[in-house]
Amino acid sequence: MTHSLTTATYDARLARLRGRLAAPGAQALIVTNLNNIRYLTGFAGSAGALVLSLDRCVLLVDGRYEEVVRAGQTAGAIAPVDVARVRKYDTAIVDHVVAGGWTVVGFEADHTPVSQFRRWSEGLGSVELRPTSDLVESARVVKDPTEIRILRDAASRLSDVARRIGEWVAVDRTELEIAGDVDRALRQAGFEKPAFDTIVASGPNTAYPHARPTDRRVRKGDLVLLDFGGVLEGYCVDLTRMAGAGRVGAEALSLFRAVREAQEAAIAAVAPGAMTTEVDAAARQVLAHQQLGSAFVHGTGHGLGLDVHEAPRVGPGDPSEAVRLESGMVVTIEPGAYVVGLGGVRLEDDVLVTTEGREVLTTAPRDLLIV
Amino acid sequence: MTHSLTTATYDARLARLRGRLAAPGAQALIVTNLNNIRYLTGFAGSAGALVLSLDRCVLLVDGRYEEVVRAGQTAGAIAPVDVARVRKYDTAIVDHVVAGGWTVVGFEADHTPVSQFRRWSEGLGSVELRPTSDLVESARVVKDPTEIRILRDAASRLSDVARRIGEWVAVDRTELEIAGDVDRALRQAGFEKPAFDTIVASGPNTAYPHARPTDRRVRKGDLVLLDFGGVLEGYCVDLTRMAGAGRVGAEALSLFRAVREAQEAAIAAVAPGAMTTEVDAAARQVLAHQQLGSAFVHGTGHGLGLDVHEAPRVGPGDPSEAVRLESGMVVTIEPGAYVVGLGGVRLEDDVLVTTEGREVLTTAPRDLLIV
Repeated sequence: MTHSLTTATYDARLARLRGRLAAPGAQALIVTNLNNIRYLTGFAGSAGALVLSLDRCVLLVDGRYEEVVRAGQTAGAIAPVDVARVRKYDTAIVDHVVAGGWTVVGFEADHTPVSQFRRWSEGLGSVELRPTSDLVESARVVKDPTEIRILRDAASRLSDVARRIGEWVAVDRTELEIAGDVDRALRQAGFEKPAFDTIVASGPNTAYPHARPTDRRVRKGDLVLLDFGGVLEGYCVDLTRMAGAGRVGAEALSLFRAVREAQEAAIAAVAPGAMTTEVDAAARQVLAHQQLGSAFVHGTGHGLGLDVHEAPRVGPGDPSEAVRLESGMVVTIEPGAYVVGLGGVRLEDDVLVTTEGREVLTTAPRDLLIV
Repeated sequence: MTHSLTTATYDARLARLRGRLAAPGAQALIVTNLNNIRYLTGFAGSAGALVLSLDRCVLLVDGRYEEVVRAGQTAGAIAPVDVARVRKYDTAIVDHVVAGGWTVVGFEADHTPVSQFRRWSEGLGSVELRPTSDLVESARVVKDPTEIRILRDAASRLSDVARRIGEWVAVDRTELEIAGDVDRALRQAGFEKPAFDTIVASGPNTAYPHARPTDRRVRKGDLVLLDFGGVLEGYCVDLTRMAGAGRVGAEALSLFRAVREAQEAAIAAVAPGAMTTEVDAAARQVLAHQQLGSAFVHGTGHGLGLDVHEAPRVGPGDPSEAVRLESGMVVTIEPGAYVVGLGGVRLEDDVLVTTEGREVLTTAPRDLLIV
């Protein structure tokens, strides 16, 4: 089953982006972020660039991808934009901008290294390069119905993987072995690949939020944290669950309960119109109440889409950093608490903002799974 | 078995980098490339920054990594530099640069987006930010004995995986199933993860150099291309082999033989003092001789290390783009030829430049494996 996007979707996205060029006063835009290029055209290579104006759109690719793009366009999976085969991207970008005859050309300042900007500037003479931010990303943040179908399907498959954790976590198995089982199950579930390096942390290692799996063997009484995700048709989903190897201590249990309560509070705070800082505060207050404020060392969540971390960030901060949630946004809600010597707990689900409130896309049980 | 780097290695790398600050006329350097930070300190997180001067070195990390770094320093796996926990990287970088009292501070122009540069500039007032390139990368390009041991071990493990291709490639199996088998074997071989998305392409799909595995089933007479790599202790290795499902056609066979001959010529050209363009030309000439010049749509290879694609690039170009090979460099040699309608062939090995000539680190047979 695929939910493939159609060229009509790409047409609409390109048209919308063209409508946004006026704000920064640009006659054309150089797009170099690969996921932005994918969003706009369906081309998903490891290199490429797009030069877009009101009446033109050229996708620049190197020899490795020329035939892929042609075949994709024939199949209707890649937008029917002009395609140019290039040897050197920076030279080709300059050539296409010069050929366009524009005087002000926008570029993605968040994705263009200073050295690349300098190479373009040297070649462009009097053309003004104008920094832009989030022109494409701000469209990506609200998902369209096809994207939501993909994310819902992906979250459902990820939940099926999570329901199998009990098959893999056991005393004497290593974190690396368990991570290997998770990755195999992700493939079996139809994911193209893991969305990031699967985290399996046991016992004291759970105190490190971004632990890498090691050859440590699970021991009786350990907490085990599993954080993994998958990519389906380019879209990322992400989930964290906790297991206990037999009876875990009372302190660890109360850590788990606090995080679970914090997560429930944050999920309940997700709604159209709510600020991301309010959602974060909902989780943070619960943990602060239980003297775990300083143990919550990261933000509450992040947006999901073609990137596994994208806008909006759901974290603390002053009002200038807050984003108002809208129907169609998809975010993780993943508070955690980490106490060196005792261990750490995190629970993570993927939540769609709906017109009514929220839909939790990941449906696997959140209980501490005792194995 | 691990070949872990010691803090003495990091001390030497930091000292060497300090010695290079004079060339761009900088009193300090902001390092933001994560693999450069890893190379210099052993810290391997997904976020971080380093501010280094002749007499100071501060590693900036956020709350997720504070304890990881402390534990790593205690264990001797992370350099004993100063550590500061930060909430916002850009603000913290500015604060540390201001506190340093320097007037000229270098930054990595290849890894600093224009928007980040602008945020720093606003905060830094009269401090001059000076673009630098390759200050760390130029040290990384020649591997030290520990790195060579890791890469040799990794290439040996990767060769063991490649020797198992015959277990997985079979008529009626899908590309995705075969890719899943490869990825599982990479884990079993001790790799932390694949070095990139494993490529398995069959039949007509082999004509696309960077094909993604699909649900296409291998048919009798197909060529099958497998390109995969693994990461061991952070270091990447990369290999491509070809299989045939039963008897393949005469044209496909002659394509294979041409690429194999091209690869042998390029490997033979690897030696200290040789230019990367000469190595590329060695492969390109063989293919051009057989009227396959235009079918070779990419470069001959790339450097390997903490990045799966790093300097030196082994490709065509004018002399300004050529790099002189030195003992201790490790590159892939991977010519290919792709003919739409017929298919494509690529063979790839990892080659260490030695004082005498070369050592091919990947040892699996290069023959067309008939299954």
